[in-house]
Amino acid sequence: MTTARRFCPKCGAQVTFRIPEGDNRERATCDSCQHIDYDNPRIITGTLPRYDGKILLCKRNIEPRLGYWTLPAGFMENQESTKEGAIRETLEECGSKVLCQQLYSMISIPQINQVHMIYLADLENADFHPTPESSEVQLFSLEDIPWEQLSFASVRQTLQHFVEDSKQGHYPLHEDTLYLNNLMTLP
Amino acid sequence: MTTARRFCPKCGAQVTFRIPEGDNRERATCDSCQHIDYDNPRIITGTLPRYDGKILLCKRNIEPRLGYWTLPAGFMENQESTKEGAIRETLEECGSKVLCQQLYSMISIPQINQVHMIYLADLENADFHPTPESSEVQLFSLEDIPWEQLSFASVRQTLQHFVEDSKQGHYPLHEDTLYLNNLMTLP
Repeated sequence: MTTARRFCPKCGAQVTFRIPEGDNRERATCDSCQHIDYDNPRIITGTLPRYDGKILLCKRNIEPRLGYWTLPAGFMENQESTKEGAIRETLEECGSKVLCQQLYSMISIPQINQVHMIYLADLENADFHPTPESSEVQLFSLEDIPWEQLSFASVRQTLQHFVEDSKQGHYPLHEDTLYLNNLMTLP
Repeated sequence: MTTARRFCPKCGAQVTFRIPEGDNRERATCDSCQHIDYDNPRIITGTLPRYDGKILLCKRNIEPRLGYWTLPAGFMENQESTKEGAIRETLEECGSKVLCQQLYSMISIPQINQVHMIYLADLENADFHPTPESSEVQLFSLEDIPWEQLSFASVRQTLQHFVEDSKQGHYPLHEDTLYLNNLMTLP
């Protein structure tokens, strides 16, 4: 991280990493214009879309984890809410309009400075299709989830909660923190 | 936003704002080293600390909203979970160790690209004190919450939920999106 941010994004001068006054950790600080270039965790927002007792998964058409199945999700953008972002990402990844219900799975992944938020959602109809981001889009019954072909540990964790909760028909918020050995299975 | 980020943090060259290939919105992109400098929403994480039927508030000793009462919260840092961040911020702002319960209030504020997360928490004991960030720290009964002296709209929203939920003794997750006219009351 320290090697990645070497110049001030406001004035272009070289930054130094030091603890600013009143702070307690090192930041990329600019001695030229006094700008402090904070680096904070990012939010991944998306949905678990349901339709007719099945769930929708997307086969990734982009790296990382190209060819593996995932839930429609992506980086939350500025000027939107977490739920708006989840709906937008679902539309972008599989062409589906969803009715977004409650937040269902929130997973912190400290190693990569991300927080993943997955909303339970319902497809308005069976309208979905491949997109530039997804080579295939498909409904799966819970018995047919491709566990060995899932993209990321956070997707697996969320689907495990969902399968378990489906037995009771009760879907509370799940909060998890993932610490992984295999960085290949992250975003 | 576009005026704030003019130089590449990796190589120091001037960036241009354009839509990268495969993307659909303008980013600060570097034609020199090809770095894309993404700008995404940030997370504010904190707690609503309870003790003996009262709640703990901190009087802000820093701008913005110096002198107004707030819940202990601050920017989530890299390498931590949302809950770890909430516990850390509480310790920093009022010297209290809390037992952090479930996520209680999540508020998106698109105008300022922030998501506020407040956890219900319980103080382990009545050990709290002023800090560099808080000029006073005090327990308030729900009847004595200083509504006219609260720091931010997100704090007011969360406390309104809490007062209402306390009548039933049931504290579900609340999700809100705030659109505010008065930017002085933000975040």
